Amino acid sequence: MSADLSRLSLNTATTKALTLEEAVDVAARAGLGAVGLWRDRVAEAGLERAAAVVREAGLRVSSLCRGGFLTAVDADGQRAALEDNRAAIVEAATLGTRELVMVVGGLPACPEPGRAARPDGDRDLVATRQRVADRIGELVPVAAEHDVRLVLEPMNPIFAADRGVLSTLEQSLDLAADFPAETVGVVVDTYHVWWDPKLESQIARAGAEGRLAGYQVCDWVLPLADDSLLSRGYMGDGYVDFPTITRWVAEAGYTGDVEVEIFNQAVWDTPGDEVVTTMADRYQRLVHPYL
Amino acid sequence: MSADLSRLSLNTATTKALTLEEAVDVAARAGLGAVGLWRDRVAEAGLERAAAVVREAGLRVSSLCRGGFLTAVDADGQRAALEDNRAAIVEAATLGTRELVMVVGGLPACPEPGRAARPDGDRDLVATRQRVADRIGELVPVAAEHDVRLVLEPMNPIFAADRGVLSTLEQSLDLAADFPAETVGVVVDTYHVWWDPKLESQIARAGAEGRLAGYQVCDWVLPLADDSLLSRGYMGDGYVDFPTITRWVAEAGYTGDVEVEIFNQAVWDTPGDEVVTTMADRYQRLVHPYL
Repeated sequence: MSADLSRLSLNTATTKALTLEEAVDVAARAGLGAVGLWRDRVAEAGLERAAAVVREAGLRVSSLCRGGFLTAVDADGQRAALEDNRAAIVEAATLGTRELVMVVGGLPACPEPGRAARPDGDRDLVATRQRVADRIGELVPVAAEHDVRLVLEPMNPIFAADRGVLSTLEQSLDLAADFPAETVGVVVDTYHVWWDPKLESQIARAGAEGRLAGYQVCDWVLPLADDSLLSRGYMGDGYVDFPTITRWVAEAGYTGDVEVEIFNQAVWDTPGDEVVTTMADRYQRLVHPYL
Repeated sequence: MSADLSRLSLNTATTKALTLEEAVDVAARAGLGAVGLWRDRVAEAGLERAAAVVREAGLRVSSLCRGGFLTAVDADGQRAALEDNRAAIVEAATLGTRELVMVVGGLPACPEPGRAARPDGDRDLVATRQRVADRIGELVPVAAEHDVRLVLEPMNPIFAADRGVLSTLEQSLDLAADFPAETVGVVVDTYHVWWDPKLESQIARAGAEGRLAGYQVCDWVLPLADDSLLSRGYMGDGYVDFPTITRWVAEAGYTGDVEVEIFNQAVWDTPGDEVVTTMADRYQRLVHPYL
Protein backbone atom coordinates (compact mmCIF):
# COMPACT_ATOMS: atom_id res chain seq x y z
CA MET A 1 0.00 0.00 0.00
CA SER A 2 1.29 3.39 -0.91
CA ALA A 3 1.29 5.57 2.14
CA ASP A 4 -0.53 8.88 2.05
CA LEU A 5 1.08 10.76 4.87
CA SER A 6 0.40 14.21 3.47
CA ARG A 7 -1.82 15.19 6.43
CA LEU A 8 0.33 13.53 9.07
CA SER A 9 2.31 15.85 11.32
CA LEU A 10 5.09 15.05 13.77
CA ASN A 11 4.79 17.08 16.94
CA THR A 12 8.28 17.67 18.30
CA ALA A 13 7.15 16.55 21.77
CA THR A 14 7.02 13.01 20.34
CA THR A 15 10.73 13.11 19.51
CA LYS A 16 11.91 15.03 22.52
CA ALA A 17 15.56 14.06 22.14
CA LEU A 18 15.80 15.52 18.64
CA THR A 19 16.70 19.07 17.76
CA LEU A 20 14.26 20.95 15.56
CA GLU A 21 16.48 20.32 12.52
CA GLU A 22 16.63 16.59 13.26
CA ALA A 23 12.86 16.33 13.80
CA VAL A 24 12.15 18.19 10.56
CA ASP A 25 14.60 15.94 8.72
CA VAL A 26 13.00 12.77 10.08
CA ALA A 27 9.52 14.00 9.20
CA ALA A 28 10.49 15.09 5.69
CA ARG A 29 12.31 11.86 4.86
CA ALA A 30 9.29 9.83 6.01
CA GLY A 31 7.03 11.78 3.67
CA LEU A 32 5.01 13.59 6.31
CA GLY A 33 3.30 16.83 5.36
CA ALA A 34 3.88 18.86 8.48
CA VAL A 35 5.47 19.29 11.89
CA GLY A 36 3.99 20.65 15.09
CA LEU A 37 6.57 22.71 16.94
CA TRP A 38 7.17 23.33 20.61
CA ARG A 39 8.58 26.66 21.56
CA ASP A 40 11.60 25.23 23.35
CA ARG A 41 12.87 23.59 20.16
CA VAL A 42 12.14 26.75 18.20
CA ALA A 43 14.06 28.85 20.72
CA GLU A 44 17.07 26.53 20.54
CA ALA A 45 17.19 26.77 16.77
CA GLY A 46 16.40 30.47 16.70
CA LEU A 47 13.05 31.70 15.43
CA GLU A 48 13.99 32.82 11.93
CA ARG A 49 16.20 29.81 11.37
CA ALA A 50 13.44 27.46 12.59
CA ALA A 51 11.03 29.00 10.11
CA ALA A 52 13.58 28.59 7.31
CA VAL A 53 14.37 24.97 8.20
CA VAL A 54 10.74 23.92 8.00
CA ARG A 55 10.10 25.93 4.85
CA GLU A 56 13.15 24.56 3.06
CA ALA A 57 12.11 21.01 3.95
CA GLY A 58 8.81 21.66 2.20
CA LEU A 59 6.75 21.07 5.34
CA ARG A 60 3.89 22.97 6.92
CA VAL A 61 3.86 24.00 10.58
CA SER A 62 0.59 22.50 11.78
CA SER A 63 0.68 24.31 15.13
CA LEU A 64 2.88 25.97 17.68
CA CYS A 65 2.77 24.58 21.23
CA ARG A 66 2.13 26.34 23.43
CA GLY A 67 0.73 29.51 24.78
CA GLY A 68 -1.36 29.68 27.91
CA PHE A 69 -0.80 29.49 31.67
CA LEU A 70 -3.21 32.36 32.13
CA THR A 71 -4.54 31.69 35.63
CA ALA A 72 -2.40 33.97 37.79
CA VAL A 73 -4.29 35.95 40.43
CA ASP A 74 -1.78 38.76 40.95
CA ALA A 75 -1.16 41.64 38.55
CA ASP A 76 2.50 40.77 38.04
CA GLY A 77 1.68 37.18 37.17
CA GLN A 78 -1.03 38.29 34.77
CA ARG A 79 1.28 40.81 33.10
CA ALA A 80 4.01 38.19 32.69
CA ALA A 81 1.54 35.73 31.18
CA LEU A 82 0.27 38.27 28.68
CA GLU A 83 3.81 39.19 27.69
CA ASP A 84 4.78 35.57 27.16
CA ASN A 85 1.67 34.91 25.09
CA ARG A 86 2.23 37.99 22.95
CA ALA A 87 5.69 36.60 22.19
CA ALA A 88 4.17 33.21 21.32
CA ILE A 89 1.72 34.87 18.93
CA VAL A 90 4.58 36.60 17.10
CA GLU A 91 6.50 33.32 16.97
CA ALA A 92 3.52 31.49 15.46
CA ALA A 93 3.11 34.15 12.79
CA THR A 94 6.82 34.08 11.98
CA LEU A 95 6.76 30.29 11.69
CA GLY A 96 3.88 30.49 9.25
CA THR A 97 1.21 28.77 11.31
CA ARG A 98 -2.13 30.26 12.28
CA GLU A 99 -2.65 27.84 15.17
CA LEU A 100 -1.24 28.61 18.62
CA VAL A 101 -2.25 25.84 21.04
CA MET A 102 -3.23 27.18 24.46
CA VAL A 103 -2.73 25.13 27.64
CA VAL A 104 -4.53 27.50 29.94
CA GLY A 105 -3.02 26.61 33.33
CA GLY A 106 -4.18 25.18 36.64
CA LEU A 107 -5.37 26.33 40.05
CA PRO A 108 -3.43 28.96 41.98
CA ALA A 109 -3.20 26.45 44.84
CA CYS A 110 -0.82 24.43 42.66
CA PRO A 111 2.78 25.48 43.31
CA GLU A 112 3.98 23.69 40.17
CA PRO A 113 2.57 21.01 37.86
CA GLY A 114 2.19 17.64 39.51
CA ARG A 115 2.87 18.78 43.07
CA ALA A 116 0.92 18.84 46.33
CA ALA A 117 -1.47 21.72 46.93
CA ARG A 118 -0.63 24.72 49.05
CA PRO A 119 -2.80 24.34 52.18
CA ASP A 120 -3.83 28.00 52.09
CA GLY A 121 -3.97 28.17 48.31
CA ASP A 122 -6.83 29.35 46.12
CA ARG A 123 -8.97 26.42 44.95
CA ASP A 124 -11.73 28.48 43.37
CA LEU A 125 -12.14 26.72 40.03
CA VAL A 126 -15.00 28.93 38.85
CA ALA A 127 -12.99 32.11 39.37
CA THR A 128 -9.89 30.54 37.85
CA ARG A 129 -11.81 29.68 34.70
CA GLN A 130 -13.16 33.21 34.54
CA ARG A 131 -9.62 34.59 34.65
CA VAL A 132 -8.75 32.39 31.68
CA ALA A 133 -11.63 33.91 29.75
CA ASP A 134 -10.53 37.40 30.76
CA ARG A 135 -6.95 36.84 29.62
CA ILE A 136 -8.09 35.30 26.34
CA GLY A 137 -10.17 38.42 25.79
CA GLU A 138 -7.07 40.56 26.27
CA LEU A 139 -5.04 38.44 23.85
CA VAL A 140 -7.62 38.32 21.07
CA PRO A 141 -6.74 41.71 19.55
CA VAL A 142 -3.05 40.78 19.52
CA ALA A 143 -3.76 37.45 17.88
CA ALA A 144 -6.06 39.07 15.31
CA GLU A 145 -3.43 41.64 14.47
CA HIS A 146 -0.96 38.85 13.63
CA ASP A 147 -3.56 36.64 11.93
CA VAL A 148 -2.99 33.94 14.53
CA ARG A 149 -5.67 31.82 16.20
CA LEU A 150 -5.67 31.06 19.93
CA VAL A 151 -6.49 27.36 19.98
CA LEU A 152 -8.04 26.33 23.29
CA GLU A 153 -7.06 22.84 24.37
CA PRO A 154 -9.49 21.09 26.69
CA MET A 155 -7.37 18.80 28.85
CA ASN A 156 -8.11 15.51 30.51
CA PRO A 157 -9.44 16.25 34.02
CA ILE A 158 -6.40 14.43 35.36
CA PHE A 159 -4.67 17.77 34.65
CA ALA A 160 -7.40 20.13 35.88
CA ALA A 161 -5.57 20.96 39.12
CA ASP A 162 -2.15 21.68 37.73
CA ARG A 163 -2.17 22.28 33.98
CA GLY A 164 -5.47 23.05 32.37
CA VAL A 165 -8.78 24.13 33.88
CA LEU A 166 -10.49 23.76 30.52
CA SER A 167 -11.79 20.22 30.77
CA THR A 168 -14.27 19.70 27.95
CA LEU A 169 -14.77 20.72 24.36
CA GLU A 170 -18.18 22.15 25.26
CA GLN A 171 -16.66 24.40 27.91
CA SER A 172 -13.94 25.52 25.51
CA LEU A 173 -16.48 26.32 22.78
CA ASP A 174 -18.62 28.21 25.30
CA LEU A 175 -15.59 30.32 26.17
CA ALA A 176 -14.68 30.79 22.50
CA ALA A 177 -18.22 31.89 21.62
CA ASP A 178 -17.52 35.48 22.70
CA PHE A 179 -14.80 35.85 20.07
CA PRO A 180 -14.44 35.54 16.28
CA ALA A 181 -13.95 31.99 14.99
CA GLU A 182 -10.86 33.03 13.05
CA THR A 183 -9.19 34.18 16.27
CA VAL A 184 -10.28 31.64 18.92
CA GLY A 185 -10.55 27.95 18.05
CA VAL A 186 -10.28 24.56 19.71
CA VAL A 187 -8.14 21.48 19.26
CA VAL A 188 -9.32 17.91 19.68
CA ASP A 189 -6.58 15.88 21.35
CA THR A 190 -7.79 12.30 21.71
CA TYR A 191 -5.83 11.75 24.90
CA HIS A 192 -7.65 14.60 26.58
CA VAL A 193 -11.21 14.16 25.31
CA TRP A 194 -11.72 10.52 24.28
CA TRP A 195 -13.93 9.83 27.33
CA ASP A 196 -16.30 12.81 26.87
CA PRO A 197 -19.96 11.71 26.57
CA LYS A 198 -20.66 14.79 24.44
CA LEU A 199 -17.66 14.43 22.18
CA GLU A 200 -19.53 13.68 18.97
CA SER A 201 -21.94 16.59 19.32
CA GLN A 202 -19.27 19.05 20.40
CA ILE A 203 -16.89 18.10 17.58
CA ALA A 204 -19.79 18.70 15.19
CA ARG A 205 -20.44 22.03 16.89
CA ALA A 206 -16.78 23.01 16.61
CA GLY A 207 -16.91 22.28 12.90
CA ALA A 208 -20.18 24.13 12.37
CA GLU A 209 -18.81 27.16 14.19
CA GLY A 210 -15.60 27.13 12.16
CA ARG A 211 -13.44 26.63 15.22
CA LEU A 212 -11.99 23.16 14.70
CA ALA A 213 -8.36 24.21 14.48
CA GLY A 214 -6.47 21.00 15.12
CA TYR A 215 -6.62 17.25 15.59
CA GLN A 216 -3.97 15.62 17.76
CA VAL A 217 -3.81 11.87 18.21
CA CYS A 218 -2.24 9.61 20.80
CA ASP A 219 -3.61 6.87 22.98
CA TRP A 220 -4.71 6.57 26.62
CA VAL A 221 -2.63 3.72 28.01
CA LEU A 222 -2.83 1.84 31.28
CA PRO A 223 -1.31 1.36 33.72
CA LEU A 224 -0.60 5.05 34.10
CA ALA A 225 3.09 5.94 34.05
CA ASP A 226 4.69 7.10 37.31
CA ASP A 227 4.70 10.57 35.81
CA SER A 228 1.12 10.75 34.59
CA LEU A 229 2.04 13.38 32.02
CA LEU A 230 4.02 10.68 30.20
CA SER A 231 1.23 8.16 30.15
CA ARG A 232 0.50 8.36 26.44
CA GLY A 233 1.04 5.83 23.73
CA TYR A 234 0.98 5.17 20.01
CA MET A 235 -2.47 4.91 18.50
CA GLY A 236 -3.64 1.34 19.05
CA ASP A 237 -1.69 0.73 22.27
CA GLY A 238 -4.48 1.89 24.55
CA TYR A 239 -8.20 2.48 24.85
CA VAL A 240 -9.06 5.24 22.39
CA ASP A 241 -11.49 4.44 19.58
CA PHE A 242 -9.59 6.22 16.78
CA PRO A 243 -11.81 5.20 13.85
CA THR A 244 -14.91 6.62 15.54
CA ILE A 245 -13.40 9.87 16.76
CA THR A 246 -11.60 10.42 13.46
CA ARG A 247 -14.88 9.93 11.60
CA TRP A 248 -16.54 12.55 13.83
CA VAL A 249 -13.68 14.96 13.10
CA ALA A 250 -13.93 14.33 9.36
CA GLU A 251 -17.72 14.71 9.38
CA ALA A 252 -17.25 18.06 11.11
CA GLY A 253 -15.43 19.20 7.99
CA TYR A 254 -11.88 19.12 9.31
CA THR A 255 -9.34 19.12 6.47
CA GLY A 256 -6.20 20.06 8.39
CA ASP A 257 -3.22 18.13 9.62
CA VAL A 258 -3.26 15.29 12.11
CA GLU A 259 -0.57 15.78 14.71
CA VAL A 260 0.92 12.94 16.68
CA GLU A 261 1.95 14.18 20.11
CA ILE A 262 3.13 11.44 22.45
CA PHE A 263 4.73 12.15 25.80
CA ASN A 264 6.26 8.80 26.69
CA GLN A 265 9.71 7.98 28.01
CA ALA A 266 10.01 4.75 26.01
CA VAL A 267 9.11 6.61 22.81
CA TRP A 268 11.63 9.32 23.65
CA ASP A 269 14.29 6.63 24.09
CA THR A 270 13.59 5.25 20.59
CA PRO A 271 15.46 6.53 17.48
CA GLY A 272 13.45 9.19 15.63
CA ASP A 273 13.15 7.30 12.34
CA GLU A 274 11.74 4.30 14.16
CA VAL A 275 9.24 6.48 16.03
CA VAL A 276 7.99 8.04 12.82
CA THR A 277 7.75 4.65 11.12
CA THR A 278 5.59 3.32 13.95
CA MET A 279 3.36 6.37 14.14
CA ALA A 280 2.92 6.40 10.36
CA ASP A 281 1.94 2.74 10.42
CA ARG A 282 -0.64 3.30 13.16
CA TYR A 283 -1.92 6.39 11.37
CA GLN A 284 -2.36 4.42 8.15
CA ARG A 285 -4.34 1.74 9.92
CA LEU A 286 -6.37 3.56 12.56
CA VAL A 287 -6.73 7.18 11.45
CA HIS A 288 -6.23 7.84 7.76
CA PRO A 289 -8.97 5.50 6.46
CA TYR A 290 -11.54 7.44 8.48
CA LEU A 291 -10.44 10.94 7.56
CA MET B 1 -16.61 23.74 69.48
CA SER B 2 -19.13 20.98 69.96
CA ALA B 3 -18.96 18.66 67.02
CA ASP B 4 -22.11 17.89 65.06
CA LEU B 5 -21.19 14.71 63.26
CA SER B 6 -24.73 13.42 62.90
CA ARG B 7 -24.58 13.51 59.10
CA LEU B 8 -21.00 12.25 58.81
CA SER B 9 -20.57 8.70 57.56
CA LEU B 10 -17.49 6.49 57.56
CA ASN B 11 -17.21 4.49 54.37
CA THR B 12 -15.46 1.21 55.16
CA ALA B 13 -13.10 1.70 52.21
CA THR B 14 -11.47 4.47 54.27
CA THR B 15 -10.54 2.01 57.02
CA LYS B 16 -9.70 -0.95 54.86
CA ALA B 17 -7.78 -2.82 57.56
CA LEU B 18 -10.77 -2.88 59.92
CA THR B 19 -13.46 -5.54 60.04
CA LEU B 20 -17.03 -4.33 59.74
CA GLU B 21 -17.47 -4.61 63.50
CA GLU B 22 -14.33 -2.57 64.13
CA ALA B 23 -15.30 0.11 61.64
CA VAL B 24 -18.80 0.41 63.13
CA ASP B 25 -17.31 0.63 66.59
CA VAL B 26 -14.88 3.37 65.61
CA ALA B 27 -17.65 5.35 63.88
CA ALA B 28 -20.08 5.01 66.78
CA ARG B 29 -17.53 6.01 69.43
CA ALA B 30 -16.61 9.11 67.43
CA GLY B 31 -20.26 10.16 67.31
CA LEU B 32 -20.82 9.68 63.60
CA GLY B 33 -24.34 9.14 62.36
CA ALA B 34 -23.74 6.50 59.73
CA VAL B 35 -21.46 4.10 57.93
CA GLY B 36 -21.15 3.33 54.24
CA LEU B 37 -20.54 -0.35 53.71
CA TRP B 38 -18.61 -2.25 51.09
CA ARG B 39 -19.89 -5.66 50.17
CA ASP B 40 -16.62 -7.43 50.98
CA ARG B 41 -16.81 -6.35 54.64
CA VAL B 42 -20.49 -7.28 54.77
CA ALA B 43 -19.76 -10.72 53.34
CA GLU B 44 -17.02 -11.34 55.87
CA ALA B 45 -19.33 -10.48 58.76
CA GLY B 46 -22.32 -12.23 57.26
CA LEU B 47 -25.26 -10.24 55.91
CA GLU B 48 -27.73 -10.60 58.79
CA ARG B 49 -25.03 -10.10 61.39
CA ALA B 50 -23.74 -7.00 59.56
CA ALA B 51 -27.21 -5.50 59.59
CA ALA B 52 -27.54 -6.24 63.32
CA VAL B 53 -24.13 -4.79 64.19
CA VAL B 54 -24.92 -1.46 62.55
CA ARG B 55 -28.44 -1.34 63.96
CA GLU B 56 -27.32 -2.11 67.49
CA ALA B 57 -24.67 0.61 67.29
CA GLY B 58 -27.45 3.07 66.51
CA LEU B 59 -26.02 3.98 63.10
CA ARG B 60 -27.57 4.35 59.68
CA VAL B 61 -26.20 2.65 56.59
CA SER B 62 -25.73 5.58 54.23
CA SER B 63 -25.04 3.36 51.22
CA LEU B 64 -23.89 -0.02 50.05
CA CYS B 65 -20.88 -0.09 47.71
CA ARG B 66 -21.11 -1.39 45.15
CA GLY B 67 -23.15 -2.80 42.36
CA GLY B 68 -22.29 -2.36 38.72
CA PHE B 69 -19.75 -3.74 36.24
CA LEU B 70 -22.46 -3.97 33.65
CA THR B 71 -20.48 -3.63 30.42
CA ALA B 72 -20.01 -7.24 29.35
CA VAL B 73 -20.63 -7.93 25.65
CA ASP B 74 -21.34 -11.66 25.88
CA ALA B 75 -24.53 -13.22 27.20
CA ASP B 76 -22.77 -15.13 29.97
CA GLY B 77 -21.06 -12.02 31.22
CA GLN B 78 -24.30 -10.08 31.15
CA ARG B 79 -26.15 -12.82 33.00
CA ALA B 80 -23.45 -12.99 35.67
CA ALA B 81 -23.54 -9.21 36.12
CA LEU B 82 -27.32 -9.17 36.52
CA GLU B 83 -27.16 -12.00 39.05
CA ASP B 84 -24.49 -10.23 41.08
CA ASN B 85 -26.45 -6.99 41.05
CA ARG B 86 -29.66 -8.71 42.09
CA ALA B 87 -27.75 -10.06 45.09
CA ALA B 88 -26.44 -6.58 45.87
CA ILE B 89 -29.97 -5.18 45.77
CA VAL B 90 -31.13 -7.77 48.29
CA GLU B 91 -28.13 -7.02 50.48
CA ALA B 92 -28.86 -3.29 50.45
CA ALA B 93 -32.47 -3.90 51.45
CA THR B 94 -31.43 -6.27 54.23
CA LEU B 95 -28.90 -3.74 55.55
CA GLY B 96 -31.59 -1.11 55.69
CA THR B 97 -30.24 1.28 53.08
CA ARG B 98 -32.04 2.45 49.96
CA GLU B 99 -28.85 3.51 48.20
CA LEU B 100 -26.84 0.99 46.17
CA VAL B 101 -23.87 2.75 44.57
CA MET B 102 -23.23 1.58 41.00
CA VAL B 103 -19.74 1.59 39.50
CA VAL B 104 -20.80 0.70 36.01
CA GLY B 105 -17.61 -0.82 34.59
CA GLY B 106 -15.11 -0.08 31.83
CA LEU B 107 -14.42 -0.97 28.21
CA PRO B 108 -14.42 -4.60 27.09
CA ALA B 109 -10.88 -4.02 25.79
CA CYS B 110 -9.78 -3.79 29.43
CA PRO B 111 -8.75 -7.22 30.72
CA GLU B 112 -8.79 -6.00 34.32
CA PRO B 113 -8.80 -2.62 36.05
CA GLY B 114 -5.57 -0.70 35.59
CA ARG B 115 -4.06 -2.96 32.94
CA ALA B 116 -2.97 -2.59 29.32
CA ALA B 117 -5.62 -2.89 26.64
CA ARG B 118 -6.19 -6.02 24.61
CA PRO B 119 -4.96 -5.17 21.09
CA ASP B 120 -8.04 -6.71 19.48
CA GLY B 121 -10.41 -5.57 22.23
CA ASP B 122 -13.64 -3.65 21.87
CA ARG B 123 -13.07 0.10 22.39
CA ASP B 124 -16.55 1.23 21.37
CA LEU B 125 -17.39 3.62 24.17
CA VAL B 126 -20.77 4.63 22.76
CA ALA B 127 -21.95 1.01 22.58
CA THR B 128 -20.49 0.25 26.00
CA ARG B 129 -22.45 3.10 27.53
CA GLN B 130 -25.59 1.87 25.82
CA ARG B 131 -25.12 -1.56 27.37
CA VAL B 132 -24.93 0.09 30.78
CA ALA B 133 -28.27 1.77 30.12
CA ASP B 134 -29.75 -1.54 28.95
CA ARG B 135 -28.60 -3.42 32.05
CA ILE B 136 -29.84 -0.65 34.35
CA GLY B 137 -33.21 -0.98 32.64
CA GLU B 138 -33.24 -4.68 33.43
CA LEU B 139 -32.33 -4.07 37.06
CA VAL B 140 -34.88 -1.33 37.72
CA PRO B 141 -37.82 -3.66 38.38
CA VAL B 142 -35.73 -5.70 40.80
CA ALA B 143 -34.58 -2.59 42.64
CA ALA B 144 -38.12 -1.21 42.78
CA GLU B 145 -39.42 -4.47 44.19
CA HIS B 146 -36.94 -4.20 47.06
CA ASP B 147 -37.36 -0.45 47.52
CA VAL B 148 -33.70 0.08 46.67
CA ARG B 149 -32.28 2.83 44.48
CA LEU B 150 -29.60 2.22 41.88
CA VAL B 151 -27.24 5.13 42.47
CA LEU B 152 -25.19 5.90 39.37
CA GLU B 153 -21.70 7.10 40.15
CA PRO B 154 -20.05 9.26 37.51
CA MET B 155 -16.34 8.55 37.78
CA ASN B 156 -13.32 10.68 37.07
CA PRO B 157 -12.31 10.11 33.42
CA ILE B 158 -9.06 8.69 34.71
CA PHE B 159 -11.18 5.56 35.26
CA ALA B 160 -13.22 5.65 32.04
CA ALA B 161 -11.22 2.86 30.39
CA ASP B 162 -11.19 0.37 33.20
CA ARG B 163 -13.81 1.12 35.86
CA GLY B 164 -16.59 3.46 34.94
CA VAL B 165 -17.78 4.69 31.56
CA LEU B 166 -20.13 7.15 33.23
CA SER B 167 -17.98 10.25 33.35
CA THR B 168 -20.21 13.19 34.20
CA LEU B 169 -23.22 13.95 36.33
CA GLU B 170 -25.06 15.22 33.26
CA GLN B 171 -24.52 11.93 31.45
CA SER B 172 -25.65 9.98 34.51
CA LEU B 173 -28.80 12.08 34.87
CA ASP B 174 -29.54 11.68 31.17
CA LEU B 175 -29.35 7.92 31.63
CA ALA B 176 -31.45 8.06 34.80
CA ALA B 177 -34.14 10.15 33.10
CA ASP B 178 -35.80 7.08 31.61
CA PHE B 179 -36.51 5.68 35.06
CA PRO B 180 -38.34 6.73 38.24
CA ALA B 181 -36.37 9.00 40.58
CA GLU B 182 -37.01 6.71 43.52
CA THR B 183 -35.31 3.83 41.68
CA VAL B 184 -32.41 5.45 39.81
CA GLY B 185 -30.39 8.23 41.42
CA VAL B 186 -26.90 9.70 41.31
CA VAL B 187 -24.11 10.26 43.82
CA VAL B 188 -21.78 13.23 43.88
CA ASP B 189 -18.28 12.07 44.79
CA THR B 190 -16.01 15.10 44.89
CA TYR B 191 -12.99 13.08 43.77
CA HIS B 192 -14.76 12.11 40.59
CA VAL B 193 -16.59 15.29 39.62
CA TRP B 194 -14.79 18.26 41.18
CA TRP B 195 -13.39 19.38 37.79
CA ASP B 196 -16.72 19.33 35.90
CA PRO B 197 -17.54 22.72 34.32
CA LYS B 198 -21.24 21.91 34.61
CA LEU B 199 -21.12 20.66 38.19
CA GLU B 200 -23.19 23.42 39.77
CA SER B 201 -26.01 23.20 37.25
CA GLN B 202 -26.08 19.41 37.23
CA ILE B 203 -26.11 19.14 41.03
CA ALA B 204 -29.06 21.54 41.00
CA ARG B 205 -30.72 19.41 38.33
CA ALA B 206 -30.15 16.24 40.38
CA GLY B 207 -31.81 17.88 43.33
CA ALA B 208 -34.72 19.21 41.31
CA GLU B 209 -35.29 15.77 39.80
CA GLY B 210 -35.20 14.09 43.22
CA ARG B 211 -32.21 11.97 42.26
CA LEU B 212 -29.47 13.29 44.55
CA ALA B 213 -28.91 10.10 46.50
CA GLY B 214 -25.51 10.59 48.08
CA TYR B 215 -22.62 12.93 48.74
CA GLN B 216 -19.15 11.44 49.09
CA VAL B 217 -16.15 13.56 49.97
CA CYS B 218 -12.43 13.12 49.59
CA ASP B 219 -9.74 15.18 47.95
CA TRP B 220 -7.86 15.07 44.65
CA VAL B 221 -4.19 15.00 45.64
CA LEU B 222 -1.03 15.35 43.62
CA PRO B 223 1.33 13.85 42.78
CA LEU B 224 -0.82 10.88 41.79
CA ALA B 225 -0.02 7.70 43.70
CA ASP B 226 1.67 4.87 41.80
CA ASP B 227 -1.66 3.10 41.93
CA SER B 228 -3.92 5.90 40.73
CA LEU B 229 -6.91 4.33 42.43
CA LEU B 230 -5.26 5.16 45.75
CA SER B 231 -4.60 8.78 44.93
CA ARG B 232 -7.17 10.27 47.28
CA GLY B 233 -6.73 12.30 50.39
CA TYR B 234 -8.44 13.86 53.38
CA MET B 235 -10.48 16.94 52.60
CA GLY B 236 -8.09 19.86 52.58
CA ASP B 237 -5.02 17.91 51.44
CA GLY B 238 -5.63 18.49 47.74
CA TYR B 239 -7.33 20.69 45.19
CA VAL B 240 -11.07 20.28 45.74
CA ASP B 241 -13.09 23.36 46.71
CA PHE B 242 -15.22 21.70 49.40
CA PRO B 243 -17.07 24.79 50.65
CA THR B 244 -18.32 25.62 47.15
CA ILE B 245 -19.34 22.11 46.13
CA THR B 246 -20.95 21.46 49.52
CA ARG B 247 -22.96 24.65 49.17
CA TRP B 248 -24.19 23.53 45.75
CA VAL B 249 -25.20 20.16 47.23
CA ALA B 250 -27.02 21.84 50.11
CA GLU B 251 -28.78 24.31 47.79
CA ALA B 252 -29.98 21.35 45.74
CA GLY B 253 -31.88 20.23 48.84
CA TYR B 254 -29.68 17.36 49.90
CA THR B 255 -30.32 16.39 53.52
CA GLY B 256 -28.64 12.99 53.60
CA ASP B 257 -25.38 11.71 54.98
CA VAL B 258 -21.91 12.80 53.91
CA GLU B 259 -19.70 9.80 53.34
CA VAL B 260 -15.94 9.96 53.55
CA GLU B 261 -14.43 7.41 51.17
CA ILE B 262 -10.65 7.62 50.90
CA PHE B 263 -8.58 5.03 49.07
CA ASN B 264 -5.07 5.79 50.28
CA GLN B 265 -2.36 3.47 51.52
CA ALA B 266 -1.11 5.90 54.18
CA VAL B 267 -4.65 6.31 55.53
CA TRP B 268 -5.10 2.55 55.55
CA ASP B 269 -1.87 2.23 57.55
CA THR B 270 -3.20 4.63 60.22
CA PRO B 271 -5.19 3.40 63.28
CA GLY B 272 -8.94 3.70 62.72
CA ASP B 273 -9.62 6.08 65.60
CA GLU B 274 -6.99 8.45 64.29
CA VAL B 275 -8.42 8.31 60.78
CA VAL B 276 -11.90 9.15 62.04
CA THR B 277 -10.56 11.98 64.20
CA THR B 278 -8.82 13.54 61.20
CA MET B 279 -11.77 13.13 58.85
CA ALA B 280 -14.15 14.54 61.47
CA ASP B 281 -11.90 17.55 61.95
CA ARG B 282 -11.73 18.23 58.21
CA TYR B 283 -15.48 17.72 57.90
CA GLN B 284 -16.10 20.23 60.67
CA ARG B 285 -13.95 22.81 58.99
CA LEU B 286 -14.50 22.32 55.26
CA VAL B 287 -17.87 20.62 54.82
CA HIS B 288 -20.29 20.94 57.71
CA PRO B 289 -20.45 24.76 57.81
CA TYR B 290 -21.68 24.77 54.21
CA LEU B 291 -24.28 22.02 54.50
